[in-house]
Amino acid sequence: MVTELYGKITIKPEIRLLGIDDSKLVKKDVLIIGTVFRGSHWMDGVMRTTITKDGMDGTEKLIDMIINSRHYRQVRAIILDGITYAGFNILNIKKLYTGTNIPVIVIMRKKPDFKKIKKALSNLAYPEERWKLLKSAGEIIDVFTRDPEKPIYIQCAGLQKKDAIKIVKMSSTRSNIPEPLRAAHLIATGVICGESKKRA
Amino acid sequence: MVTELYGKITIKPEIRLLGIDDSKLVKKDVLIIGTVFRGSHWMDGVMRTTITKDGMDGTEKLIDMIINSRHYRQVRAIILDGITYAGFNILNIKKLYTGTNIPVIVIMRKKPDFKKIKKALSNLAYPEERWKLLKSAGEIIDVFTRDPEKPIYIQCAGLQKKDAIKIVKMSSTRSNIPEPLRAAHLIATGVICGESKKRA
Repeated sequence: MVTELYGKITIKPEIRLLGIDDSKLVKKDVLIIGTVFRGSHWMDGVMRTTITKDGMDGTEKLIDMIINSRHYRQVRAIILDGITYAGFNILNIKKLYTGTNIPVIVIMRKKPDFKKIKKALSNLAYPEERWKLLKSAGEIIDVFTRDPEKPIYIQCAGLQKKDAIKIVKMSSTRSNIPEPLRAAHLIATGVICGESKKRA
Repeated sequence: MVTELYGKITIKPEIRLLGIDDSKLVKKDVLIIGTVFRGSHWMDGVMRTTITKDGMDGTEKLIDMIINSRHYRQVRAIILDGITYAGFNILNIKKLYTGTNIPVIVIMRKKPDFKKIKKALSNLAYPEERWKLLKSAGEIIDVFTRDPEKPIYIQCAGLQKKDAIKIVKMSSTRSNIPEPLRAAHLIATGVICGESKKRA
């Protein structure tokens, strides 16, 4: 198993986590918000970039945002909301890990419907490249966080599976997903739509 | 004392507070961010509007943002970072209170230098009107929050002084100012400048 190649990381309650979410697709350049949290406790910083709707620039733009942040050296894990941002701008989580040297954890509320996604990709440029990115994100693991009956699903790059699970459980204190991701979602939708909305 | 006219409000640990801050003046329409917190604990929502740099529309635009929010009926106090937003767009805190029916608490890190402000106002349209707004914000009260040696200063409208002090002390858990205001500042600067910066 690939993830077992990585050493164990120290997971303190105040571990710095970076949650990244996108906003609604109101124009070609889609706002991306990153929030730095100390564990699940408090927000320590906010960063932003834009990526192209249905583009191929997501991974590079995220790496740039992260390595140029004043929080860069403190962040111990990047938490993503799926790997499909800004329409179908699909992220390469292994490249995001090697480009930042920070482990990556992908959170999904539902298991991806690969059949449906493959069909959607056929209408875009570079369908095979995007498909490869999707399939390369690795094993999908069930994790029970706040809701004991409804798991979330994760994928990871650059850290052991058990460490990823520990970080996700520890930081999902107010909902079924990690706090940095919940906050990034509130901010991204609030800024673009005028007010944040709870997810369905 | 005017504030004693108001009844006592119930201050539970999870009282909903709305912190409002502005962003850097990069264009004529200045981004304003509001964050709704449950006490100092966690962010429950984000809202935004814009107001005009050095304009006179701040109070009206803030009232609109607040009364149209889905959090409107839950918010028990509005917390402002001074009353001078977006350059010299000075807020009328009594009108903000009567227009929303939510008490207002103004936070200042330093006592305002009225002499300096009066001079600056003389270069703008409506200097007397702005000056009246500034002077009408009422008594300035010292409050010690996290730092036992350095007070912050507050003004309030629509609630008793002792309730305002209680709310400010209770919600200033991570710095010398209430959490909703700290978060609103991080978001407003992060979104406009690319990354949030700590205050000097």
